[in-house]
Amino acid sequence: MKKLLFLYLIVILVAFSFFYMMFIRGSETERLEREVGLKGSMDEKYVMVNFLTGIDYWKNVLKGFEDAASLLGVSIEYKGSTQYDVQEQIIVLEQVIARNPAGIAISAMDPTALNEAINKAVDAGIPVVMFDADAPESNAYAYIGTNNYKAGETAAHKMAELLGNQGEVAIITLLNQQNHMERKEGFVSTIITNYPQMTVVATEDGKGDLWSSEQAAVKLIEQYPKLKGVFVTEANGGIGVGHALMSEGKVDELEVIGFDTDKGTLDMVKSGVLSATIVQGTWNMGYWSLMQLFHLNHQLVEPISTQQNTGVAPLPIYIDTGVSVVTKENVEHFYVK
Amino acid sequence: MKKLLFLYLIVILVAFSFFYMMFIRGSETERLEREVGLKGSMDEKYVMVNFLTGIDYWKNVLKGFEDAASLLGVSIEYKGSTQYDVQEQIIVLEQVIARNPAGIAISAMDPTALNEAINKAVDAGIPVVMFDADAPESNAYAYIGTNNYKAGETAAHKMAELLGNQGEVAIITLLNQQNHMERKEGFVSTIITNYPQMTVVATEDGKGDLWSSEQAAVKLIEQYPKLKGVFVTEANGGIGVGHALMSEGKVDELEVIGFDTDKGTLDMVKSGVLSATIVQGTWNMGYWSLMQLFHLNHQLVEPISTQQNTGVAPLPIYIDTGVSVVTKENVEHFYVK
Repeated sequence: MKKLLFLYLIVILVAFSFFYMMFIRGSETERLEREVGLKGSMDEKYVMVNFLTGIDYWKNVLKGFEDAASLLGVSIEYKGSTQYDVQEQIIVLEQVIARNPAGIAISAMDPTALNEAINKAVDAGIPVVMFDADAPESNAYAYIGTNNYKAGETAAHKMAELLGNQGEVAIITLLNQQNHMERKEGFVSTIITNYPQMTVVATEDGKGDLWSSEQAAVKLIEQYPKLKGVFVTEANGGIGVGHALMSEGKVDELEVIGFDTDKGTLDMVKSGVLSATIVQGTWNMGYWSLMQLFHLNHQLVEPISTQQNTGVAPLPIYIDTGVSVVTKENVEHFYVK
Repeated sequence: MKKLLFLYLIVILVAFSFFYMMFIRGSETERLEREVGLKGSMDEKYVMVNFLTGIDYWKNVLKGFEDAASLLGVSIEYKGSTQYDVQEQIIVLEQVIARNPAGIAISAMDPTALNEAINKAVDAGIPVVMFDADAPESNAYAYIGTNNYKAGETAAHKMAELLGNQGEVAIITLLNQQNHMERKEGFVSTIITNYPQMTVVATEDGKGDLWSSEQAAVKLIEQYPKLKGVFVTEANGGIGVGHALMSEGKVDELEVIGFDTDKGTLDMVKSGVLSATIVQGTWNMGYWSLMQLFHLNHQLVEPISTQQNTGVAPLPIYIDTGVSVVTKENVEHFYVK
């Protein structure tokens, strides 16, 4: 009988310990998980919305977005217009807004056309940040991307290095697009300010396509026999200029700096047709877009911003993801794996 | 006997469940905590190093740094020179580096004097970011702070609003300090570009102190009888100009915009002596400095940056924390609590 009582006591004690472990320690762990560490839940869905969804350029941006999401334990989705069509992008964005996601990161095909949809999302309480291509007059909370003026400066310094700080150079760009105009201005003013023995002799419109850029380059080569270098502010254009150099037999006489790191551009850097290309901080664009959206969604923001009428920004308003220079020496690292 | 066997069985089962809970679920929780969520440990110590450690201005910066640390579950420390003495700041920084912390956020009293110490820390593998006052030629990974040129733009737009887009204005600034020159340039070029009926008639040196700024304001008032507004790029100066308005009986005739939100400035905004002051995103400077350091310390960075010779930045190189305008209407929110 005593033995039985003793056993009952053990059963009760062990059962008690068991329930202690189950509930007290369990909930303590939950509390710890909730209170320390940045962590979301898988039913939080953050959506990336861009345009020309199929192009290589976005792969590294999406990788950054995904990497941040898996670190934070949240879900993501990738949407956008398949075509270079702003109406399609607006429709996709409206559909995303209707499902009330935890946050939206948008790259705007046009700097103003999406403002109405963006503001609608913000008014509905959805966190919105812009990446890569801003909509500066919208109510989006932040912009994460390249300082294009500085990208132009970087290209100018590299061009000067390639040319021993002297000679005639030209630019092939997109005359009707803000970010390309900024790249051009950064390039031109850096040459003027820092390299008195260099001259920017012409700025041509490459129209963002290979063929027009090739034609523009052929024209420049004929018109300016002393031309030593060309800065092309956009990827297709760089390849077009590369073709012009090959067809005109000028590969060894001109230094060409392209932009971005699609396979065609990298191949031309590798083979020496292009001297360099400018790479943007695409992974960081995606990573820090998600990080900003997470902070907005969880209200981890500047405390004063949550008061009425302070006008204080909850988050940093601009994150400059930087650029760097790709040459034959380091080109291998930039191919999409 | 059967009863006894049954009880033994129960004891064994319950004990088994208990150990299951203890070890299996326990380690599963640990695994979850380790793999999902951004979380550090309390033996990771991040240090903030600045100068004039006692001034109000840093309180909100430190608050942001602390808030990020408690979210991430890491430790922080606050160090700096008590005086406006760059040698003292260098000594403090060297001492911090010697203890090999998890990361250092530095506000540089001088834009170049700390470079050697900063680079030493970076070479030793310590994550370093700059906040509020950059050392642009150092090897620090990032700068988190105000775009001072844009702060000047914001002040100019507010001044135009206060003056109905017309009239003579002047600036009182610090002529030998980079950030103040940028504020001045942003202000001047915004007036020139956007407000043709406004003129910047003078730029005076307030030397960063109350008395010199008061004298400068008295001189301006005498010299320019049609003067309608003054932008003061620095806190002490704003208070000095406020004193000048009171002693000259000009409080109702001149619109003055100050800078920052120390108590003296806020009191003058509240009483209407100053029309407005510009507030910087100080909490965000602290918060995102710690966030950046944590990412560097845990190698949560752009994957290509970890390869040799890519020159790619591991983190965004610049974070603009933004500014906003404080007026009588919202001034209450800005007092340090």
